[in-house]
Amino acid sequence: MYQRKIPLDLDCGTGIALEVILSKWKHCILQEIDRGVRRPKDLTAAIPGITKRVLHEQLHQLEFYGIVDKVIYPIIPPRVEYSLTPLGKTALPIVQAVNQWGLGFAPNLKSLRDRQLEE
Amino acid sequence: MYQRKIPLDLDCGTGIALEVILSKWKHCILQEIDRGVRRPKDLTAAIPGITKRVLHEQLHQLEFYGIVDKVIYPIIPPRVEYSLTPLGKTALPIVQAVNQWGLGFAPNLKSLRDRQLEE
Repeated sequence: MYQRKIPLDLDCGTGIALEVILSKWKHCILQEIDRGVRRPKDLTAAIPGITKRVLHEQLHQLEFYGIVDKVIYPIIPPRVEYSLTPLGKTALPIVQAVNQWGLGFAPNLKSLRDRQLEE
Repeated sequence: MYQRKIPLDLDCGTGIALEVILSKWKHCILQEIDRGVRRPKDLTAAIPGITKRVLHEQLHQLEFYGIVDKVIYPIIPPRVEYSLTPLGKTALPIVQAVNQWGLGFAPNLKSLRDRQLEE
């Protein structure tokens, strides 16, 4: 079973959310599953830079936390699909709000970079 | 001037927000400044585990990104205070929403831990 090396502080909501839904790959995975990308190989293709091993680990953690459900269809070859649980769905507005803020900040970042290049 | 080792992808809002306002210490610093903790030594005292050097680096980055303002009062000894810029204030609802989601998730995390201990 998944065990985090450094236990999370249960009083720090931000720390919990950063680990459970907002860490480097998890927010991408959640958004892709929400867009209808449900199979591991399609998720690997949809998320630039993610490896099969990392995707597997992250899906395993998301499942452990109750954010995604894994369904294995008993066909040959077996078909595996992931979906968001009701709890996982509550994370979407948060991930989207964070994403929106970041996109709104992107032009500032671009100006800061342009200014650095001019110096 | 502050330069990030791996440049941020300007199309990934979540990645930007995670770096600019939600990284390990930044969300704590923003929330403390919002609560009225404005001087570096008070911030160090208010945020468990942060060192003076890390606080300085993080404040420097937040200032670079335009999230906080630094005011140096010309008195002896000089008094330094930080405040949120209007842009920094736009980050607060996001940080608070993330924190709320995490706090709402904390009981789940507690049950998962208790279950692990029982096994």
